[in-house]
Amino acid sequence: MPQGRPATVPDDGLTTRERRNRPLVIVHTGEMKGKSTAAFGLALRAWSQGWPIGVFQFVKSAKWRVGEEAALRALGRVHGETGEGGPVTWHKMGEGWSWIQRPGAEADHAADAREGWAQIRRDLAAETYRLYVLDEFTYPMKWGWVDVDDVVATLRDRPGRQHVVITGRDADPRLVEAADLVVEMTKVKHPMDAGQKGQRGIEW
Amino acid sequence: MPQGRPATVPDDGLTTRERRNRPLVIVHTGEMKGKSTAAFGLALRAWSQGWPIGVFQFVKSAKWRVGEEAALRALGRVHGETGEGGPVTWHKMGEGWSWIQRPGAEADHAADAREGWAQIRRDLAAETYRLYVLDEFTYPMKWGWVDVDDVVATLRDRPGRQHVVITGRDADPRLVEAADLVVEMTKVKHPMDAGQKGQRGIEW
Repeated sequence: MPQGRPATVPDDGLTTRERRNRPLVIVHTGEMKGKSTAAFGLALRAWSQGWPIGVFQFVKSAKWRVGEEAALRALGRVHGETGEGGPVTWHKMGEGWSWIQRPGAEADHAADAREGWAQIRRDLAAETYRLYVLDEFTYPMKWGWVDVDDVVATLRDRPGRQHVVITGRDADPRLVEAADLVVEMTKVKHPMDAGQKGQRGIEW
Repeated sequence: MPQGRPATVPDDGLTTRERRNRPLVIVHTGEMKGKSTAAFGLALRAWSQGWPIGVFQFVKSAKWRVGEEAALRALGRVHGETGEGGPVTWHKMGEGWSWIQRPGAEADHAADAREGWAQIRRDLAAETYRLYVLDEFTYPMKWGWVDVDDVVATLRDRPGRQHVVITGRDADPRLVEAADLVVEMTKVKHPMDAGQKGQRGIEW
């Protein structure tokens, strides 16, 4: 974990405190697992700060993220019942998507993705959340369903102190350029190399 | 996320189901943030499976992991009150450690780390948990406070179906060799490069 002194102090007219609390755009990309897992880990910290959290899940399949969803919804209920932590809202865009494209289904997926992004735009404008998890959001950008320049401009101009974390492979270079923090998860070794398939509790 | 068919099917005498549910040793290493965050994200899935979770935090400072701890303890309470999810136990080894070594303090830290590892050994032998998060555990190995060969042998011979995730930089090659899954978090861009320091809710 990086700690201590930053390497340079920018001439941006901000105090250290203002700069420190500047809202971030974070991208978790790379070929390896851990991108979304780390984003949901980040949500744990946001929750404990009492921040409203909005998850926008550009889902692959019904079982995708069921564990994270159950746990974060439970934390949202804890907030509702005790006031501890923050509220959690979980949005699924195009529920029941699959990576395996069915013939004729692409138009619907593109429309679902665009509607998802339109909702995120509205929430950013309204400052609905303090942390946004845009899970697997690189793919609708990659496939041209959502306009990358619009995403970048919307994130750049968002009001207030809203943090946004975007996950998925093949993050567009414009998004990487616009982000404050980019982490790439790279594979060193994976059990599927040894013939093992994904398992409950670990992969989902 | 890797999905679908494994590249090879090993000749290990296991059925696909046995191989699929084989307990894993997972290592999150690399220079970049996200290692522990992803481990705690993994704990969300384990929780929703109802698995008992043991976190062993080889801590740096008092504020370290406060957000994750609050959230996971809240999930543990949800389990206690409603039966949803799994129980969570949070161990801090050598509470109040600091990366900044105080003269004469090293002996205590080494003893704390060894006591932490002894507790993990006992819990593995007793099959106390289904998921172990050994947070920042690479460091006591790196510094020679805990014997790497003992760790590797203990993990290899652990009974039952216990998953273990170990985080931290500079994972020992013997640990990487023994692990089933190794992810390296690498830096693409970090806000400290632009003069920004860590902030509440994001870094801790």
